Amino acid sequence: MSAQSLHKTAIKEFREQWIDFIHDLQDKICKALEDADGNAKFIVDAWERKPDGSGSGGKTRVIANGDVFEKAGVNTSVVYGKVTPKMRKHLQMQGDKWFACGLSLVIHPLNPFVPTVHCNYRYFELYKNDEIADRWFGGGTDLTPYYLYEEDAKHFHQTYKTVCDDFDDKFYLLFKKYCDDYFVNTHRNDERRGIGGIFYDHRKPDEKQDIDFWFSFGKSCGNAFIDAYIPIVEKRKNISFTDENKHWQEIRRGRYVEFNLVHDRGTLFGLKTNGRTESILMSLPPTVRFEYDYRPKAGSAEDKLLQVCLHPKDWV
Amino acid sequence: MSAQSLHKTAIKEFREQWIDFIHDLQDKICKALEDADGNAKFIVDAWERKPDGSGSGGKTRVIANGDVFEKAGVNTSVVYGKVTPKMRKHLQMQGDKWFACGLSLVIHPLNPFVPTVHCNYRYFELYKNDEIADRWFGGGTDLTPYYLYEEDAKHFHQTYKTVCDDFDDKFYLLFKKYCDDYFVNTHRNDERRGIGGIFYDHRKPDEKQDIDFWFSFGKSCGNAFIDAYIPIVEKRKNISFTDENKHWQEIRRGRYVEFNLVHDRGTLFGLKTNGRTESILMSLPPTVRFEYDYRPKAGSAEDKLLQVCLHPKDWV
Repeated sequence: MSAQSLHKTAIKEFREQWIDFIHDLQDKICKALEDADGNAKFIVDAWERKPDGSGSGGKTRVIANGDVFEKAGVNTSVVYGKVTPKMRKHLQMQGDKWFACGLSLVIHPLNPFVPTVHCNYRYFELYKNDEIADRWFGGGTDLTPYYLYEEDAKHFHQTYKTVCDDFDDKFYLLFKKYCDDYFVNTHRNDERRGIGGIFYDHRKPDEKQDIDFWFSFGKSCGNAFIDAYIPIVEKRKNISFTDENKHWQEIRRGRYVEFNLVHDRGTLFGLKTNGRTESILMSLPPTVRFEYDYRPKAGSAEDKLLQVCLHPKDWV
Repeated sequence: MSAQSLHKTAIKEFREQWIDFIHDLQDKICKALEDADGNAKFIVDAWERKPDGSGSGGKTRVIANGDVFEKAGVNTSVVYGKVTPKMRKHLQMQGDKWFACGLSLVIHPLNPFVPTVHCNYRYFELYKNDEIADRWFGGGTDLTPYYLYEEDAKHFHQTYKTVCDDFDDKFYLLFKKYCDDYFVNTHRNDERRGIGGIFYDHRKPDEKQDIDFWFSFGKSCGNAFIDAYIPIVEKRKNISFTDENKHWQEIRRGRYVEFNLVHDRGTLFGLKTNGRTESILMSLPPTVRFEYDYRPKAGSAEDKLLQVCLHPKDWV
């Protein structure tokens, strides 16, 4: 075996390990969500990116109208491509081919006392003449409650703080801030989409933290999802709710739509570069309301939630 | 009176005439919509753009939960400003101050057999050292039915064709095409938001058609709104509908949201330049659904509507 082909095998093996992890994580998360729902089963929609079946594609798994989850989407994708002139220009990509693999999920519960959650973990490689020219990891998990339970917010943030602290004691504060700074409706006085979590991007190997470090970090964050979210679902899923609670949930879901369609870079990049629309927009909530100048009553439970979206707090 | 101040008076008078027209049109349209609703009354929200009360502002008039109109917004605004470095760069504006005045409305009926309608008529002036450096008119009206009645589509298009033909026999075809080419969800196989209408922009005075011509054209288009839309409302508002019809309306409203938040230049410009969010987003429908990969049954009434959105037709 030549040095070159050995190198290619190593590239492939690293990629394949991440792909295996992502698919395995998808299975575990879907199983945990089905168990929490107690009734709904995910349906699988496997898709290929190009009609020529070049190997790019994904598995979109969705629940509609579950007992607990009104709409849930857990998507994985493994995508290869040539760097187009558009990507070269807009993304400053200095290479000829690229590879990306990730898991992305958005869960919209029926009950307004159960929060919505989003997570996304991904790995990217850029090649020049079949050598890796650049590579990075990105990801994050963030929580969007409709009513604030401080203990849930603490549990969620503490789970990711524990993961972060295992890797670098600066990570949690740094990645919590990225998250608070990213999921923002700037057109609504910098109202956040929810109460945050962690978010990191373009994490590349350097002398201190090599690519295996970032692989391992992404893996630990991905694996923490079930512990971070499912206990909250279990605690809140049987609370009875009124039409007013549902109404408020649908108003807040409107803000979720606004963020995803106006500001989210991933969504817009996907929609404008011929991505698979249904998989990208599976993030949108099932039922939504937009009312002119809606404001919750000062001091109400609804307002309490709004205030922590306007003024992010330290939870742990 | 010096030549300069005479000139300034003329500038002001032209602007003031358009402002008067826009406010008068707002009153007439609101009256016609209240009459068609039979119950709801518009509430008025007058707003100023800056706390210093520099004269910029608008009147947002809204109906929520009417008998016929589930959500209706008719907005006028009169806005003055300095050309910011951002505007200079992104809009290639070669001046120091600007003025804009327009009317914009979006009507979302309760009954899925009554179409949604949008219109927008506006005038813009750009100044350099207090002289007009550039000026233009823009506008349009387009219809978004949930079920297709060919006679309604013909009536709507014929109304604007008649107006266009009075001014230039090339206008209707040209402006119908602009409309079909503009209100497009490119991320959904170029599905149009509805069945179109007319749309024109950056219409500046030239040797053939002076600024009074465009003023007069904008006025005629604006005045045609009531004739174009209200008869359709009257014809369809009492048709009984099922939960399935409402469900389909809410799915299609999701497409309306997608277009407005992902593609509409006016909406995005407003949201990203500190415009008044509530007035901009009054265009969003009251209740909306997003379902994964929803497809109407081939040959159904729902599919018939979808097909004319995918393949725009000539209606007159």
